[in-house]
Amino acid sequence: MVAESGRIVTLTTDFGQRDPYVGVVKGVILSRFPQALIVDLNHEIPPFDIIAGAWSLKISLPYFKSGAVHIVVVDPGVGSQQRRIALELDDGIILAPDNGITTPFIENAKRAYSLEKPRFFLDSVSKTFHARDIFAPVAAHLLSGTPLKELAVEVDKNSISRIEGLEPKVEPGLTEGMVVYVDRYGNLLTNIEAEIKPRIKEILISNQSLKIANGSYDTIDDGHAQVLCGSHGYLEIAARQASAQDILKVRCGEKVRILTD
Amino acid sequence: MVAESGRIVTLTTDFGQRDPYVGVVKGVILSRFPQALIVDLNHEIPPFDIIAGAWSLKISLPYFKSGAVHIVVVDPGVGSQQRRIALELDDGIILAPDNGITTPFIENAKRAYSLEKPRFFLDSVSKTFHARDIFAPVAAHLLSGTPLKELAVEVDKNSISRIEGLEPKVEPGLTEGMVVYVDRYGNLLTNIEAEIKPRIKEILISNQSLKIANGSYDTIDDGHAQVLCGSHGYLEIAARQASAQDILKVRCGEKVRILTD
Amino acid sequence: MVAESGRIVTLTTDFGQRDPYVGVVKGVILSRFPQALIVDLNHEIPPFDIIAGAWSLKISLPYFKSGAVHIVVVDPGVGSQQRRIALELDDGIILAPDNGITTPFIENAKRAYSLEKPRFFLDSVSKTFHARDIFAPVAAHLLSGTPLKELAVEVDKNSISRIEGLEPKVEPGLTEGMVVYVDRYGNLLTNIEAEIKPRIKEILISNQSLKIANGSYDTIDDGHAQVLCGSHGYLEIAARQASAQDILKVRCGEKVRILTD
Repeated sequence: MVAESGRIVTLTTDFGQRDPYVGVVKGVILSRFPQALIVDLNHEIPPFDIIAGAWSLKISLPYFKSGAVHIVVVDPGVGSQQRRIALELDDGIILAPDNGITTPFIENAKRAYSLEKPRFFLDSVSKTFHARDIFAPVAAHLLSGTPLKELAVEVDKNSISRIEGLEPKVEPGLTEGMVVYVDRYGNLLTNIEAEIKPRIKEILISNQSLKIANGSYDTIDDGHAQVLCGSHGYLEIAARQASAQDILKVRCGEKVRILTD
Repeated sequence: MVAESGRIVTLTTDFGQRDPYVGVVKGVILSRFPQALIVDLNHEIPPFDIIAGAWSLKISLPYFKSGAVHIVVVDPGVGSQQRRIALELDDGIILAPDNGITTPFIENAKRAYSLEKPRFFLDSVSKTFHARDIFAPVAAHLLSGTPLKELAVEVDKNSISRIEGLEPKVEPGLTEGMVVYVDRYGNLLTNIEAEIKPRIKEILISNQSLKIANGSYDTIDDGHAQVLCGSHGYLEIAARQASAQDILKVRCGEKVRILTD
Repeated sequence: MVAESGRIVTLTTDFGQRDPYVGVVKGVILSRFPQALIVDLNHEIPPFDIIAGAWSLKISLPYFKSGAVHIVVVDPGVGSQQRRIALELDDGIILAPDNGITTPFIENAKRAYSLEKPRFFLDSVSKTFHARDIFAPVAAHLLSGTPLKELAVEVDKNSISRIEGLEPKVEPGLTEGMVVYVDRYGNLLTNIEAEIKPRIKEILISNQSLKIANGSYDTIDDGHAQVLCGSHGYLEIAARQASAQDILKVRCGEKVRILTD
């Protein structure tokens, strides 16, 4: 009998959902470990957008219980010499390309590994579909009980690539963060923790000063983009039944400056 | 051992599939009740479109067996004082905001409840993500066997909000319904039962008179939007390998008038 | 206890994911066979695109283990007299309309069947939703152990419809294939096996001559569409962090001509 805690695999990719790629990855996992419980976390990371991928993981993984395996594939460098890595967390394992997308988890990771033992991959590894050929079979091995240290080669966790600026820069009187995710509704998620809210004197994005909403979406003035405490514990720029992105014309990566008391 | 009938949770939302929100809801459910069998019913309800959400539920729920829990989140008023409710049906339970989206099920509901016992929610309830913080943990409690009457406070089912006009208005010689759902193909689903078909003298939408197709999509004249009996038992306005919505330029909520014998 | 090998049902459709249609099909299957493990292979086959549907199946099914049931619904002729068929493979069963979409599997199929026994369908079969009314209940019967020969009527496998040109035409010095699938990234998948690569003298599409990339996507010259060996074992036309389709302005079905040594 398999422990329930060790049955979950989550998928975070930029594959979209209009191709069979995600389904094939699931086929590979289920053909090797049929009790797997696969959860689609996000397949619509904008192609090659490492920041949005990192943030999507950051706000999602805390809701999964201990023992889950998280496959992450946002991978502009697929087929290059870039490493495929595994990050061992207190409560799960991330399998990902070494391109910075695991940045939010490196500090607290217990150990880091490089996936470089072909005997745990599919027999034939393509140059462009490592989710199917490497991550899926390795995830199945993990669920089957093979320890990570047998599947992969331990590396210094400080050798793992990081995204610059994913943590906001805090100076006296000024906090400088950025838009780290734009969701379907056009809400702009920032990397600035919501607890800053009572100290905000002014909040600026793209040379525009934003008002702070009192409560939830329904307290935002019609036609305006305003700031509220998002459901993930960070400041969020939103509009009422409208897209803050359309109103402000900004994108993921845009700087957000907050003048504080 | 869990009875199979009590393992299914369906999800109907306007979250889209391009963000991690749906996956997080699944994480919360599976972390509490790992045997859950979660079925995505519809995550592409147009944002805030209560009518489309209600109709999507109406044509879907009959295909699920007894004991399923249906989570519904199309929620323009999230964060306002609007209640979160549970509707106990003969063959399942709906968890939803009290904004009219459960209209098709109120009449036959056995009991209605208000979800207002925070001890069954996540420890920290955000203002904007009740699917994760309220509905998901309550669904997990239901699957785990906690009775609804313990999880929630019973309320008068006549106090539940309803959508006006979701039932067509029938007068002698005239039936007035509306477009209640537009699907991916541009088919316009109406709320008028197909059994009216032999009595139709004329069918009008947006000042245009429509022809009635004899059979299925392949009997529709090329380039025209025509009326047929949809697969859900209601009249549907469709085109042959084309979008009836594009041809007629109408939207969800548009009136449909039928002159009858 | 159910053998794991016989629990998987895959779904390949042109239903999209913005309607409850896929969820309803799952409801029908799970209500009859609750242990089913349903994998979404592809719901975004362009409406009515039989070639893309056939190719999506061809590159996906090898990754599923023996015993899976594959439901396929890309069905411009739904409701016409077209047969609903079942193809028995060495390692699985395909349920599909008889419109050519099973072309890649006919040659090696063990037997072919026509689904024409209404007692195994839903009580009421609509004219337009055979995935729900026919394929889903038949799949549930198969998983439950009813043999295909009892559920359907055997037919000559040579009577099954085929797509013309899905196999490339090979002449001395010239191989003529086509674009058989365009994916989310705008990669153009062809039906020409990658092993031809060392013998290519020139490759032409839409009157343009393409360069051959040395390795993976990152070896493609910026702003150009070039040819590489795709992850499925066939030639693929791709661009670097860009869409080859946008660059070349071609579509599924476009001819690809290769002059060879």
